[in-house]
Amino acid sequence: MLHIASLEKLVHELNRLPGIGPKTAQRLAYYILQTKDAYAEKLTDAVLRVKSEVHLCPECYSFTDRDICKFCDDSSRHSESLCVVEEPSDISRIESSGAFRGRYHVLHGVISPLEGISAKSLKIQELVDRLHKASEAGRPITEVILALDADLEGDTTALYLAKTLQGKHIKISRIAHGIPIGSDIDFIDDRTMGRALENRIEL
Amino acid sequence: MLHIASLEKLVHELNRLPGIGPKTAQRLAYYILQTKDAYAEKLTDAVLRVKSEVHLCPECYSFTDRDICKFCDDSSRHSESLCVVEEPSDISRIESSGAFRGRYHVLHGVISPLEGISAKSLKIQELVDRLHKASEAGRPITEVILALDADLEGDTTALYLAKTLQGKHIKISRIAHGIPIGSDIDFIDDRTMGRALENRIEL
Repeated sequence: MLHIASLEKLVHELNRLPGIGPKTAQRLAYYILQTKDAYAEKLTDAVLRVKSEVHLCPECYSFTDRDICKFCDDSSRHSESLCVVEEPSDISRIESSGAFRGRYHVLHGVISPLEGISAKSLKIQELVDRLHKASEAGRPITEVILALDADLEGDTTALYLAKTLQGKHIKISRIAHGIPIGSDIDFIDDRTMGRALENRIEL
Repeated sequence: MLHIASLEKLVHELNRLPGIGPKTAQRLAYYILQTKDAYAEKLTDAVLRVKSEVHLCPECYSFTDRDICKFCDDSSRHSESLCVVEEPSDISRIESSGAFRGRYHVLHGVISPLEGISAKSLKIQELVDRLHKASEAGRPITEVILALDADLEGDTTALYLAKTLQGKHIKISRIAHGIPIGSDIDFIDDRTMGRALENRIEL
C-alpha cells in the first residue's frame, strides 16, 4: 500500500462487504479514486438515500419506500394465502415466476443455533399476530406457504412454524423440492434425488 | 426486484464498479441496507474523504494526500534512477520486494490503440520534462527502469519510451520476464518459456 490513511480506510470499509476480499477492495478503491466523473458523489448519494428512504413494511416486513409495500397495498392480490420467505430478495424470485398472487411475510433469517439466531430474533411473533389480526378482522388467512431453503436451517424453521401455527385451522404447506425443470437426472445430487423420490406425485 | 427506486439506483451504481455484476451488486445493496450499525455512513465518509484528500503527486504522479508523495519526499532514496510503472498500485508491489531504492514515475496506463489510449493521454511528456529538469538542475537521472506488464500494450509502451528517450544518455532497462521463482517448469506457458530462453543469463 501507498500508506495513504484515507485510501486504507476506504479499502477497509469495502473489505467489510460480503464476498469482497482485500484484493478486490483495493481494486474498487482505486477505481473510485480514479473515475473522473461524479461517480463517488452518485455512489454515496445512492447509499445514503437507500438508508434514509427504505424501511420495513409494517405489514409484511419486506423493504419499501412507502407507508406500506406495493404487495400489501395491492387490492387485486388475494389476502387469504400468505407466502413466508427468508429475505425480501426472495420475493422478487417468486414474483417473477408469476405463480403466486397472495401476500408475503418476510422472516429476516432462519433459525440457526450455530449462528445464534433463535426464533425470537425472527419475525415469527409478528406472523402469529398478523394471522390473529386477520382472523379477528373477519378476513382470515387460510393458507401459509413456506418458501424456505431446503437446508438444515430451512427445515428447522419450517418445522418450528408448523408447530407454532398448529391448531389454528390454517393449511400449512412448503414449496416442493425436487429435480429442477430441464435438468439432467445424471447430474442431480443425492439429497435432491432422495427428496424428489420421497415427494413423488401420483399421476 | 422490489421496484424501490432508491434501491435500484444503488444496485445500478454498484454495478458500475469493476468486476461487480448485477447479482453481486444486488447482494451488496441488500447488505448495505440491512447492516444495523453506522456502516453506510462510514462507507460514504471513506469514499468522500478519499476523493477530497487524495490527489496526484506533482513529481511522480502517484497518489498522495500530502504536497508531495512520500517516495519523492524521502531524501534517503537515490534520485539518479527512476522506475516507470503503469499504475500507482504497482509501486506497492515493487516496494515490498525491497529491491529498488530510487524514485518512481506513474504513466497512468499503457498505450493501447484498441482502447483508444495514445501516448498523449499518458504521463509520458511529464516524464520527458522531469528528466530534462533533473538534468538542468545538475542532478541527472541516469537510469530509467520500465516495470511494465509483459503483454502487447506493455511491449508497445516500452518500445515507444525507449525511442522517445533515445540519445539522452540515459540507460533504459526493462524488468526481466521469465520463470517465477519456485515455480515448476512443467507448468510454465509457452510465451514465458520463450522469453526465459531468449533472456538467458550467462553464468
